[in-house]
Amino acid sequence: MNYRDIYNKIVKKNSFLCVGLDTDIEKIPECLLNEEDPVFEFNKRIVDATQQFAVAYKPNTAFYEALGAKGWTSLQKTAEYIKKNYPGIFLIADCKRGDIGNTCKMYAKTFFEQMPFDAVTLSPYMGRDSISPFLEYEGKWAIILALTSNPSASDFQIIQEKETDEFLFEKTLKFGQLWGDENRIMYVAGATQAYKFQQIRKIAKNNFLLVPGVGAQGGSLEDVATFGMNETCGLLVNSSRGIIYASNGSDFAEKAGEQAEAISIKMKKLLEDNKKNSQRK
Amino acid sequence: MNYRDIYNKIVKKNSFLCVGLDTDIEKIPECLLNEEDPVFEFNKRIVDATQQFAVAYKPNTAFYEALGAKGWTSLQKTAEYIKKNYPGIFLIADCKRGDIGNTCKMYAKTFFEQMPFDAVTLSPYMGRDSISPFLEYEGKWAIILALTSNPSASDFQIIQEKETDEFLFEKTLKFGQLWGDENRIMYVAGATQAYKFQQIRKIAKNNFLLVPGVGAQGGSLEDVATFGMNETCGLLVNSSRGIIYASNGSDFAEKAGEQAEAISIKMKKLLEDNKKNSQRK
Repeated sequence: MNYRDIYNKIVKKNSFLCVGLDTDIEKIPECLLNEEDPVFEFNKRIVDATQQFAVAYKPNTAFYEALGAKGWTSLQKTAEYIKKNYPGIFLIADCKRGDIGNTCKMYAKTFFEQMPFDAVTLSPYMGRDSISPFLEYEGKWAIILALTSNPSASDFQIIQEKETDEFLFEKTLKFGQLWGDENRIMYVAGATQAYKFQQIRKIAKNNFLLVPGVGAQGGSLEDVATFGMNETCGLLVNSSRGIIYASNGSDFAEKAGEQAEAISIKMKKLLEDNKKNSQRK
Repeated sequence: MNYRDIYNKIVKKNSFLCVGLDTDIEKIPECLLNEEDPVFEFNKRIVDATQQFAVAYKPNTAFYEALGAKGWTSLQKTAEYIKKNYPGIFLIADCKRGDIGNTCKMYAKTFFEQMPFDAVTLSPYMGRDSISPFLEYEGKWAIILALTSNPSASDFQIIQEKETDEFLFEKTLKFGQLWGDENRIMYVAGATQAYKFQQIRKIAKNNFLLVPGVGAQGGSLEDVATFGMNETCGLLVNSSRGIIYASNGSDFAEKAGEQAEAISIKMKKLLEDNKKNSQRK
C-alpha cells in the first residue's frame, strides 16, 4: 500500500478515521465472555460495525500480550480477519518497537510475515538501525514516534539541540525524511500537541501523521485538522476508547458504529473545508 | 529483588554474566527440531548448562514473537522454568517497550503478572509516563535505554542540549535518577561505547548497567570493567550469540556451558582486581 492508495480510500470514504483496538478483556461486554475467544469476537463485531467509516485499524499490542499466548492468538486472528474481509483497510500494529538491526528483523518478521500488518509504530531512540529493517519490506510502513500525546512527552521530545536549535522531535522528523519517502514513513503526532502541527508540517510536508489523543486524552479533532492537514489530507486520526467502549451492553457494536459515524461526519466536513481552502490558494 | 540481592549473587558466583536468550528457531541444533517445543527445549538445556556461571538471563522477546502464539508460549515456559528452578537468578524481558501510561500498565501486567520477569528494558523517548507504571510493582525493575551498542546510537543519543550542554543519553540517565533509586532502575549501556562509561558513572554512580554488545557486536569486557565498574560491581554484562550458538551439534549445551565458564573466569579476575583497587582507595 502506498500514500496514494490510502488517500484514495480517504476520499472514497470521506473519512480519515483509524479505530484503535485497545481491547481490554476487563472492559468488553459480559455477553461475550462465554465466547471461545472473547477478544477476537469483540474485535470482529467492532470492525464489522465501524469499517464503513474507517480507513485504518490499529490494535495496540500491549492489550493482547497481557493475556499471554491466548492474547497473541486473538491479535493474529484480528489482523487476519481485517485483511481478509476488508483488504483495502490500512492495518497498523501499534507496538512501538525499537532495537538493534538484528532484533528488528525479527520484529519485522513478526508483524509483516507472521501477521499481515501494513505498518508498525516505532520508537526512534536507537536511530536508523532500529527503523531500516522494516523498510526492507515492499509496501510496508514505519510509523515513527515524533511528538507524542502523553503528558511526559516533553521530558525528551522538546529538548533543543545546541548545534541546530532544533527540538528532538524535529530531529526525529528530519531523520525520518532521510530514511524513506512519504510512501513508507509516517509519524506519530499527538492530538494534544496540535498547536505544534505547523512546526511538524514545515519538515514533514507530505507525510501522513498518525494522530492519537483525540477523545479520552483531550485532543481536538478540529485543531488537528486546522494545523495538521496537507493538501492530500495527510492525517490518520485515531480513536480507541471513545468508539470501542461506547456501550458495554449487547448493543456495543451498534453504538461503536454510531460513534465512528459521528466522527466520520465531522471528518467529511473537515475534508470539504480543506478542499475549498486548497482550491482558494 | 533489590540491588543488594543481585550483588550478593555476583559475589557468590564470582560472575556478572547475563546470558541473552535470543533463540532463533533457524539457528538451533537440528536434533531439537522434533521436540514438541524446540525453542523451550533449547533454552532449558542452555540454562541448565550455564546457570552456575550466570546471575541473569535475558530473553529477547522479538525472537519469540516472530513465531506467533507458539513463540509466546515458549517465552512464558522459559521464564517460568528459570524462576522455578533457579529462583535467585535475575530475569530480564528484553522487550524495549515504551508507550503512554495506560498502555504501559498492560505491558507491566504482561511481564510482571502474566510472566515472572524481574525487569523489563524500556525506551525513554516518551518520558516518565512510559516508565512509572513498571515501578508500581514492588521489587521489579525498569532498565532504561541510555547509550546503546548499535552503530546508529549516535543519531539521537549524543545530541547535545542547548540549555545544559548535556547529551541526550545524559538527560536519560538524569531523569532515571529522579524516577527511582538504584534498587529499581538500571540503564542499558552498550559495550561498544565503553569509553563513555566514565561519563555515565558521573551521573549513575550506584546503578547497575546492563551491557550488551560484548562479542558479536565487538565490545570488550575488559574495557567495560575498567570504565564501568563501581565498588559493588554495578555491571551485568550480556552475551547471547557467543554462548548460545557456541555449537550447533548435539553438544550445544555443553559448549554453551564452556563459553559461559570462560567468560565467568575472566569476570572473576576483573572482580578481584576491582576489589583490590577499591581497597587501595
